[in-house]
Amino acid sequence: MFQRTSVLLCRVERFAQTRTITNNVGFIGLGNMGSHMANHLAKQGRKLKVFDVVADAAKSVPGAIVCKTPQEAATDVSVVFTMLPDGNVVKDTVLRNEGIAKGIKKDALMIDCSTIEPTTAKELHTIAKDNGYRFIDCPVSGGVTGAAAGTLTYMIGGDIKDVDTARQYLLQAGKNIFHCGGPGAGQVAKLCNNLILGVTMAGTAESMNMGLKYGLDPKVLTDIINVSTGRSWSSETYNPHPGILPNVPSSKNYDGGFMVKLIAKDLGLAEGAALAANAPVPMTAAVHQLYRAMMNHGLGDKDFSVIYQFLQGKKF
Amino acid sequence: MFQRTSVLLCRVERFAQTRTITNNVGFIGLGNMGSHMANHLAKQGRKLKVFDVVADAAKSVPGAIVCKTPQEAATDVSVVFTMLPDGNVVKDTVLRNEGIAKGIKKDALMIDCSTIEPTTAKELHTIAKDNGYRFIDCPVSGGVTGAAAGTLTYMIGGDIKDVDTARQYLLQAGKNIFHCGGPGAGQVAKLCNNLILGVTMAGTAESMNMGLKYGLDPKVLTDIINVSTGRSWSSETYNPHPGILPNVPSSKNYDGGFMVKLIAKDLGLAEGAALAANAPVPMTAAVHQLYRAMMNHGLGDKDFSVIYQFLQGKKF
Amino acid sequence: MFQRTSVLLCRVERFAQTRTITNNVGFIGLGNMGSHMANHLAKQGRKLKVFDVVADAAKSVPGAIVCKTPQEAATDVSVVFTMLPDGNVVKDTVLRNEGIAKGIKKDALMIDCSTIEPTTAKELHTIAKDNGYRFIDCPVSGGVTGAAAGTLTYMIGGDIKDVDTARQYLLQAGKNIFHCGGPGAGQVAKLCNNLILGVTMAGTAESMNMGLKYGLDPKVLTDIINVSTGRSWSSETYNPHPGILPNVPSSKNYDGGFMVKLIAKDLGLAEGAALAANAPVPMTAAVHQLYRAMMNHGLGDKDFSVIYQFLQGKKF
Amino acid sequence: MFQRTSVLLCRVERFAQTRTITNNVGFIGLGNMGSHMANHLAKQGRKLKVFDVVADAAKSVPGAIVCKTPQEAATDVSVVFTMLPDGNVVKDTVLRNEGIAKGIKKDALMIDCSTIEPTTAKELHTIAKDNGYRFIDCPVSGGVTGAAAGTLTYMIGGDIKDVDTARQYLLQAGKNIFHCGGPGAGQVAKLCNNLILGVTMAGTAESMNMGLKYGLDPKVLTDIINVSTGRSWSSETYNPHPGILPNVPSSKNYDGGFMVKLIAKDLGLAEGAALAANAPVPMTAAVHQLYRAMMNHGLGDKDFSVIYQFLQGKKF
Repeated sequence: MFQRTSVLLCRVERFAQTRTITNNVGFIGLGNMGSHMANHLAKQGRKLKVFDVVADAAKSVPGAIVCKTPQEAATDVSVVFTMLPDGNVVKDTVLRNEGIAKGIKKDALMIDCSTIEPTTAKELHTIAKDNGYRFIDCPVSGGVTGAAAGTLTYMIGGDIKDVDTARQYLLQAGKNIFHCGGPGAGQVAKLCNNLILGVTMAGTAESMNMGLKYGLDPKVLTDIINVSTGRSWSSETYNPHPGILPNVPSSKNYDGGFMVKLIAKDLGLAEGAALAANAPVPMTAAVHQLYRAMMNHGLGDKDFSVIYQFLQGKKF
Repeated sequence: MFQRTSVLLCRVERFAQTRTITNNVGFIGLGNMGSHMANHLAKQGRKLKVFDVVADAAKSVPGAIVCKTPQEAATDVSVVFTMLPDGNVVKDTVLRNEGIAKGIKKDALMIDCSTIEPTTAKELHTIAKDNGYRFIDCPVSGGVTGAAAGTLTYMIGGDIKDVDTARQYLLQAGKNIFHCGGPGAGQVAKLCNNLILGVTMAGTAESMNMGLKYGLDPKVLTDIINVSTGRSWSSETYNPHPGILPNVPSSKNYDGGFMVKLIAKDLGLAEGAALAANAPVPMTAAVHQLYRAMMNHGLGDKDFSVIYQFLQGKKF
Repeated sequence: MFQRTSVLLCRVERFAQTRTITNNVGFIGLGNMGSHMANHLAKQGRKLKVFDVVADAAKSVPGAIVCKTPQEAATDVSVVFTMLPDGNVVKDTVLRNEGIAKGIKKDALMIDCSTIEPTTAKELHTIAKDNGYRFIDCPVSGGVTGAAAGTLTYMIGGDIKDVDTARQYLLQAGKNIFHCGGPGAGQVAKLCNNLILGVTMAGTAESMNMGLKYGLDPKVLTDIINVSTGRSWSSETYNPHPGILPNVPSSKNYDGGFMVKLIAKDLGLAEGAALAANAPVPMTAAVHQLYRAMMNHGLGDKDFSVIYQFLQGKKF
Repeated sequence: MFQRTSVLLCRVERFAQTRTITNNVGFIGLGNMGSHMANHLAKQGRKLKVFDVVADAAKSVPGAIVCKTPQEAATDVSVVFTMLPDGNVVKDTVLRNEGIAKGIKKDALMIDCSTIEPTTAKELHTIAKDNGYRFIDCPVSGGVTGAAAGTLTYMIGGDIKDVDTARQYLLQAGKNIFHCGGPGAGQVAKLCNNLILGVTMAGTAESMNMGLKYGLDPKVLTDIINVSTGRSWSSETYNPHPGILPNVPSSKNYDGGFMVKLIAKDLGLAEGAALAANAPVPMTAAVHQLYRAMMNHGLGDKDFSVIYQFLQGKKF
């Protein structure tokens, strides 16, 4: 459990980054999210050393030095980012032969932007301390769109001095920084947000579907909800009915966006974290299982708003 | 099922009512909501004939004629409002000896502001037609606060010409009018909104509780959620953690507001309506049962955001 | 709510019927269940007057007098059975022009074997009383198989003297009689049983599916469950994994048996009854929604044990 | 995932153990379950070396050698049992300084009777192999009552030759042996059974509570369920209504039996295992959260059938 005393006040920072600093940055994990982030850093003058298990992925950052191992990418840099699929991968990337811990220099800072278990995040803090380098857990929100636009929000767990160090880098690839508390607190905050997202989208989908069955115009119903107590990010900016909003996944056959399998992953992490803290989460558990059932029905790669169609029994 | 073809485009109307019209209005049901509405009408110059089963309640509208029966309150008026606890009461108030149907004149308009089953609303439309008067189902949102402030939103099912007739009256006691479609569509829209509300509040409560267990500052977590994908009316304007927002029930020992037993009632209606339309509502069903369990735990009269404390096992 | 004082002790009766009595019996509703029941009565010497809205159905009972209306089938008989799809149909069959109430003679007994809302059952008791005839609610368990074999179990709500009258008829088409209490108590007992059935089958399906995913032999797992705390009617006699048991629906492509749409109907009735009695039923509500979702996925006519395959995402 | 090919046919063995063998046995973990098991072994002539972190607990086995470390208890024995609270404790007991792995001799057999994650069980198999000793996962069912009576059922994952070695020991403290498959399969089978148990008890409690609210006699309702499709171990042998059955926890203020916190633990393990195998478990997830909520309401140490009273809002 995190100590309440370790929680600092919320410090949101939105000021633009002005100085350009040229010291090297390591970046490990160049998937859909990481490649955008690394490119933002590179464009703003950072010299990058990059690594990805998929060799081609590492080539997605023009001008970057492509490394053969995490160790190499972590060597001779002040800061090393990781953006990886899960906590086990992050741990392995740190601890394995030719891992980050082998290369990173004393007092350098590792910034883990992956979404992982809060407990694993805390382990990674301890590993860092034991090995003489610094660490913050720093999951992001905003998705691929936010990563591409450089508007990500960062939720950070760790020491304030490490957040201060990270700030200039983070603001080159994102916009908002929240210092949420001590080790793991960034992960907890991320999961807290995403469990609401999963639940609220499902509720919105149920509502829109019921309205549709009764012949209500989905646009009218959306207008009503959005000025009423049912309004949310899901109804206002990510409506699950096709055609209500342009450029959202529901208007593009539920392609792109936040995949069912990824929100299912986050809901699984949230449930696990809730369990460890003895916090009952009945709605989270219920919706988690819905998304799991959808994966078994072949919808894992669709945007999570496809739950609207799943309720209708639509086949894809 | 409502005919899609009977759904008109959304027509939101917010202009202020200027003319004062003095023809008589009947008002039946002067509880927490109805008494505020009736008083608004009276203050704006309407001559009211009022009825309530609780004799004293009927005295809550200064200047109104207190009637002995619904029939009497519906006699010689152009418009008769009802604001009653449930569909059976509305039906009984219409059909009983000395009921509305016995008193209401040809082509007068009955405006039912109660939240009831869409099917009962449709029955009431039919009864009206068979008896030569007009009817709209017109549930409201905004709660007691909105009723007191005269800022209610109306969701209407029925003919557009009847909405046109109702408008001048409605805007004396509220602010927004949505014409949702044919008979019953107002009730469906209300239930669609409220089911999201019930679900989203529960998700928000789970999230805030988990954050708390991990030592996150509830204010910081709220700030994060409110700029992220988890934001909703529940997190922004009705936060369940005490002290985040002033003047919401969570900051006043969960007193006042929207009682658990009332959202449970609406969720029950929503489930019933969903069932009749063959629309699966797994989250609605799950949260409905949570609120029912809370009632059995003595929380029926607390504001529904008390689900946050229920998850924590707090006794009241 | 039913008065506790009206509940008699359990009286299970299994003795065989020996006397053959020849007075006429009306039988209304000759579907999958009713036609078997009527045939048993006919074979044991009852003279039947039958009615069904589907004219051909009424011809399924050799030797019976086919009637043109419920009124006709209820005329000049001591006992009239109904086995109909839902409460509204039963009520309509009683009350309509040419309905039962128009034909049934004073002190004759109506035995309603349909599964309907307990509240509607109570209404039917009152209607009977008001019209001078007798009534018991008498839903059955055992399904089409039990009806065909004449082994149905009856759960009865009503006066003991009416149960006494019914006994000789009931035992000609079934085996066990439970007098559950006053008006409606038979329906409550039926719903109480069936909600457990729906829940337990779902839990069994989840378990078998998880075991399968881990490579356990479904037969071994079934053997373990059946000698352990997880055993139930669902695991022992109606196992959802194909091929564990012969002659159950899971071994016949989930055809036949107790259709998803029918258990969904019963679970809906159970939820409604629970709601009216302020009894929380979270598991019933959850599983009800699962079966509803399955209906939307085209599985409404499959046996309810197909939930096992639905969890696996199997398409039919 | 376990290999299907590693699953052997079910082999249930119930023959009585006749030979008395005197070679030494280590037994680590002498709590409610373990102390009974160890005493059975001792009474049948086994020479025991025992260890528990609570020094007094280790004294509960007359005649046993009380050891200071797991290493000591595992030294010079052919078989070492562990019966510990969770997977982390088992792993730590094996791997720590002065742990089992330091003391156990080549080819000796470790029998882990704890209920733990299937993945941890698999790790323990690998650790054993890497360290030159043998291992089976061998969780039990039957509870404290079964342990006291020597009637436990064992569900085993591992090699058949190791099951053969274990048999003579296991049958001295229990009755039935199931070989469920390869490494971890015993744990999977245990969790598969217990998730049904948790779900079915909840469904039974909902049903009994609804019946009670309608005035049905709980004894009559139980009789009906037990000859109908709703019957299960929960209704027949562990009925949640006080006084239906003697000597079950519901008849003793819900004390003793299978504590809420323990079934919650098992359901958490089941959910985790289901997640890892991509098996949706919506009912398991729902009931897990109910038991978690009950823990927060102070019912963690009551028997899990207390869910019946929790639904009624009863305070303890």
